[in-house]
Amino acid sequence: MEYKDKNVPEVVIKRLPRYYRYLGECLDQGIMRISSGKLSEKMSVTASQIRQDFNYFGGFGQQGYGYNVEYLHNEIAQILGLKNGYKAIIIGAGHLGMALANHASFEKRGFAITALFDIDEKKVGTKINGKPVFHIKDIERFIKKNNISIAILSLPKSEVIELADKLAEYGIKGLLNFSSAEIKTAKHVAVENVHMSDSLMTLSYKIKLEEDKENL
Amino acid sequence: MEYKDKNVPEVVIKRLPRYYRYLGECLDQGIMRISSGKLSEKMSVTASQIRQDFNYFGGFGQQGYGYNVEYLHNEIAQILGLKNGYKAIIIGAGHLGMALANHASFEKRGFAITALFDIDEKKVGTKINGKPVFHIKDIERFIKKNNISIAILSLPKSEVIELADKLAEYGIKGLLNFSSAEIKTAKHVAVENVHMSDSLMTLSYKIKLEEDKENL
Repeated sequence: MEYKDKNVPEVVIKRLPRYYRYLGECLDQGIMRISSGKLSEKMSVTASQIRQDFNYFGGFGQQGYGYNVEYLHNEIAQILGLKNGYKAIIIGAGHLGMALANHASFEKRGFAITALFDIDEKKVGTKINGKPVFHIKDIERFIKKNNISIAILSLPKSEVIELADKLAEYGIKGLLNFSSAEIKTAKHVAVENVHMSDSLMTLSYKIKLEEDKENL
Repeated sequence: MEYKDKNVPEVVIKRLPRYYRYLGECLDQGIMRISSGKLSEKMSVTASQIRQDFNYFGGFGQQGYGYNVEYLHNEIAQILGLKNGYKAIIIGAGHLGMALANHASFEKRGFAITALFDIDEKKVGTKINGKPVFHIKDIERFIKKNNISIAILSLPKSEVIELADKLAEYGIKGLLNFSSAEIKTAKHVAVENVHMSDSLMTLSYKIKLEEDKENL
């Protein structure tokens, strides 16, 4: 694949998982070829935007008769690093951590969730969805020994900030942050913040829009 | 506020919660005025994009010396419907439902989480973060009596699809869907899907990019 980093805009990067998911659904349904028009309709993105997006990565050879779904799905997986076998741990085995450990789609996308970490002695030594819960004091050794790339942070805001720097030292390359803490880490460590209330606000906007229409 | 629906693009709508959050942080820090340049830097969006975004809603009167933070924060809250007092319920009191019931940012944004619903008799009658858990059989009455607008769906995919139609009948106006089910409802019901693995895929992209740079 001819793929160079052309400073792909964040908004394009954010669309890649959606393309990937949708193409996966097509494959599940046995759809082997898709036009940019059809893809556009499904994704609520214009066909020209789709072509622009794909051009950042070489274009994927659409030739009038549409994209090869399996090829495109594979290429996007590659671009997203889903074939790199990144291993992850979950830090914080509270309700959210447990929900995440049970969340099938993480492993479906190629990420191995290898263990959870907590300070609660009642949880340490148990398993959640087959994954062991270890004490946080053992985290450095575990990360280094098992070559863990990703830490999923499902612990309180106050604990996240101090931890983030240590995780970078131990070799973690990316943090998926579910807390509202604003994390500043070493430059080579990637951070993705999950703001669950953003989705609720977007939903609220849509409800309000519909109500405004009804009141016209 | 002069605000007309000009078919605001989805990507602009999705940025509103981020503006809102960031402006809230400014207010917490006592920052009363902000330039579009500074806002641009913080949001990783160009200043011209910010002006374009705001123009969908009347522009918010930036006049060379920047935006009034409190005014802007208030206007965006209004646009997002955060002042409409939408009430929500959580359906499914498993780990994710419990995590969501404990998630402070929902109520911080103006949404009242009034109750949870489940079929598990062991959970029915208990409280989670002060919110009662009721049996799902009582959901219709509860929604109608309490004028609930939003249902947060934290239950298995298989159960979501059947439920969605009923909720629309009962008067629910928006669904926040945490399952991987693709929901098709009546046109007037808004749906926001939360794909937690999308964030993990975006993180993976960034890790891969960094690794590729290191290997150059």
